[in-house]
Amino acid sequence: MQPNHRARQIVESLIEGANVWQVEPLAVAGATVVDCGVQTRGGLEAGRFMARAALAGLGEVTLQRDERWPGPGVSVVVRTDQPAWACLASQYAGWPIQAEGYFAMASGPMRLLRGREPLLEAFSSSFQESTAVGLLESSRLPPEELVREIAKACGVQLKELVLLVAPTRSLAGTLQVVARSVETALHKLHEITREEAFDLHAVISASGAAPLPPPSNDDLVAIGRTNDAILYGADVTLWIDADDERIEAWTERLPSATSPDYGEPFAEIFRRVGGDFYAIDPLLFSPAAVRLISVQSGRTFTAGSIAPELLARSFGGDSA
Amino acid sequence: MQPNHRARQIVESLIEGANVWQVEPLAVAGATVVDCGVQTRGGLEAGRFMARAALAGLGEVTLQRDERWPGPGVSVVVRTDQPAWACLASQYAGWPIQAEGYFAMASGPMRLLRGREPLLEAFSSSFQESTAVGLLESSRLPPEELVREIAKACGVQLKELVLLVAPTRSLAGTLQVVARSVETALHKLHEITREEAFDLHAVISASGAAPLPPPSNDDLVAIGRTNDAILYGADVTLWIDADDERIEAWTERLPSATSPDYGEPFAEIFRRVGGDFYAIDPLLFSPAAVRLISVQSGRTFTAGSIAPELLARSFGGDSA
Amino acid sequence: MQPNHRARQIVESLIEGANVWQVEPLAVAGATVVDCGVQTRGGLEAGRFMARAALAGLGEVTLQRDERWPGPGVSVVVRTDQPAWACLASQYAGWPIQAEGYFAMASGPMRLLRGREPLLEAFSSSFQESTAVGLLESSRLPPEELVREIAKACGVQLKELVLLVAPTRSLAGTLQVVARSVETALHKLHEITREEAFDLHAVISASGAAPLPPPSNDDLVAIGRTNDAILYGADVTLWIDADDERIEAWTERLPSATSPDYGEPFAEIFRRVGGDFYAIDPLLFSPAAVRLISVQSGRTFTAGSIAPELLARSFGGDSA
Repeated sequence: MQPNHRARQIVESLIEGANVWQVEPLAVAGATVVDCGVQTRGGLEAGRFMARAALAGLGEVTLQRDERWPGPGVSVVVRTDQPAWACLASQYAGWPIQAEGYFAMASGPMRLLRGREPLLEAFSSSFQESTAVGLLESSRLPPEELVREIAKACGVQLKELVLLVAPTRSLAGTLQVVARSVETALHKLHEITREEAFDLHAVISASGAAPLPPPSNDDLVAIGRTNDAILYGADVTLWIDADDERIEAWTERLPSATSPDYGEPFAEIFRRVGGDFYAIDPLLFSPAAVRLISVQSGRTFTAGSIAPELLARSFGGDSA
Repeated sequence: MQPNHRARQIVESLIEGANVWQVEPLAVAGATVVDCGVQTRGGLEAGRFMARAALAGLGEVTLQRDERWPGPGVSVVVRTDQPAWACLASQYAGWPIQAEGYFAMASGPMRLLRGREPLLEAFSSSFQESTAVGLLESSRLPPEELVREIAKACGVQLKELVLLVAPTRSLAGTLQVVARSVETALHKLHEITREEAFDLHAVISASGAAPLPPPSNDDLVAIGRTNDAILYGADVTLWIDADDERIEAWTERLPSATSPDYGEPFAEIFRRVGGDFYAIDPLLFSPAAVRLISVQSGRTFTAGSIAPELLARSFGGDSA
Repeated sequence: MQPNHRARQIVESLIEGANVWQVEPLAVAGATVVDCGVQTRGGLEAGRFMARAALAGLGEVTLQRDERWPGPGVSVVVRTDQPAWACLASQYAGWPIQAEGYFAMASGPMRLLRGREPLLEAFSSSFQESTAVGLLESSRLPPEELVREIAKACGVQLKELVLLVAPTRSLAGTLQVVARSVETALHKLHEITREEAFDLHAVISASGAAPLPPPSNDDLVAIGRTNDAILYGADVTLWIDADDERIEAWTERLPSATSPDYGEPFAEIFRRVGGDFYAIDPLLFSPAAVRLISVQSGRTFTAGSIAPELLARSFGGDSA
């Protein structure tokens, strides 16, 4: 499958058009760090490149007009025929990086090379590739020492490591986060099927959309809006090779509305729990609406719905 | 125009990414048979590749979000500036293949090389290319002897023949069938203009959309749903170089609703006629809604409309 | 940035597929003139190539289904992360060419090489590239002498000049004109900020859509419809790095409805002023609806709305 090599090709195209897409490739400790919105402007296409690299080139990311919600009137649409590899093995932000006062959520296929997340057990116990590609959601560029540690953890030479960095509040950062509609559905499906013998590769194909929120100068507002885009705006379709009884049960549990924390803009939930992220119900993080289709029976199961009024509260009122 | 060479390039890309798109290229009697859903999973992108190859690379096939109908909420959108070549000379399933208990509807540009369909007279009487590409809509892989006969009928060496195979009930098979919205409009236009001196090349450009139905484990249900996607869900726009009077007359006759068999899910029609496909009015097979635009006068003529309630009956109820 | 070299690559692809896209490259005075709809048919894809070349490859142009308005049900959607370069330095039709009874509005990146428009001062005072690409909106192919003058004005050798020509009334010509939704927003923003120190590069990203009108055999009708597609059908989103107070003031002034000439199909306005184009309020030329997003504050400002009933009057009644 070579997810890092596939992601690397996408990154090469981004670097080639760096001046057009308003990003800047930097040499940090011998590795390549592409600034997509920290000290650069980034933009929509830079965000699309980030999202496509995060999916290891195994999914398509498009912007489509969508007037179902407030905000820029644009949806970020993701489609993949390798949902488990694209979204869990690669895109999931499962590597919190913290060092020397620096913090970032790391995602992308480089996580497979580190291989220490339990989530990755379903993929390969000793995954190897000579190049590593990762995303850092952070408002700062990573310090040299940290870059060295990442390369070491992935078992690649420094010159073979590429990191794409953008703050959540940037345009590119916003886009790559809301490109995670399918990923949150898959991750929650993984969580709720822990007790069952369920192989995530049974999800054959997937498609999802979430509204692109306005970016923000405030990290907390930005994190709130991108979460709300998923919780209250995302709808996801999964084509699954499983029996109706199980699919029906999963469908009912999947949407965000099944969580007791559902119902307020994320920034308000965060404030209510006193800023303690881990006090929020982990099962909140899922799409607003899901549609699961059994390729065995041909039946469709749906649950949840989008909540435009909550998105309006989150994305801010329009004027003039 | 070289439709088979164009299609071949698309197939090469599909084969290159076979493990990602969940298809398998097989050597059968020296030819290449790409299994896109018989013993493989296939998926949405495999279906897109099939549709693009069927159109000989002369049309664009995209998936777009569309909430006008039930089902996966996705439309298969086709666009071409060579409607006659793309849809009739290539995509039309005009070659029924039957041998040794095997049956498949064959489509794709290889039909041009065989050249025995009256429909193909408008294109070339002695069409030649050294490579042949075709699609087989079938739930079984073709036997060796049949593959040899196809190569012979097309006048190409076995190693120059590529066949893409998927059952209607598979995800890829479903997608490539509902990518035929424009084709059904053009084919019906061909049927209703038989008595007139009408050159199909007067259709300059075309665009059409049809809902992607949920796949099914049952071939008959799948055939019903894909037909319903066209009959009750497809809308097609044709830009035509002809005079208003003729276009107006064609427009009125084009939509499926003009057929006496219109009004029930296809599976029910099929049951009503006792499973005798040829007892069904051939003029039923056309889009639900059409829009014909005269590039001579700039006038637009429309007829028909989509029927979401019939699609809902066909695609199955949602639950949860 | 090399806008002409970027555009040239797009043109090479168009020429390579000339017989498919129904265009014809001609040698005129040693330069290349690609006929996209004068004596050829052109089509939707030819129009997309023209629009992408006009944007110097710095923007994406897609066709998306859109049922908000009458007509073909298709929107031309433009997206760019280099709005100033793509739309003003390249796409804007700022060079009226008139000679020997020939008239055309010229656009595209070749304008940068001529460099005589005040609008271009923001870009480069002495822009140089060895190749030049331009569009001519005209119902005739340019005479040899004129082609020589264009090459001379751009300072390139004749063999390095490529001109794409299509009448407004052709399918390709219609499409490339309505691909100017973002351009009209940017140009009006430029007009209304003349007194302020505003750098157009502060517009980071942009996205816009406008309905594709039916083409027409009548140039005046075609000009009316394409203008109406923008004035009464276009909506544009701009992401801007500026403070709220200024953005709010601009937003209010941007939509077409702020002009006293707003409210009738363009052809009627034109008739009312006795065919004197310059008697029409220049600030009329702007999108129907705008959405400006401050990347500083994260606030969204909107004004205007689309007017489907005016589009219906302009695009003509449907029949049957």
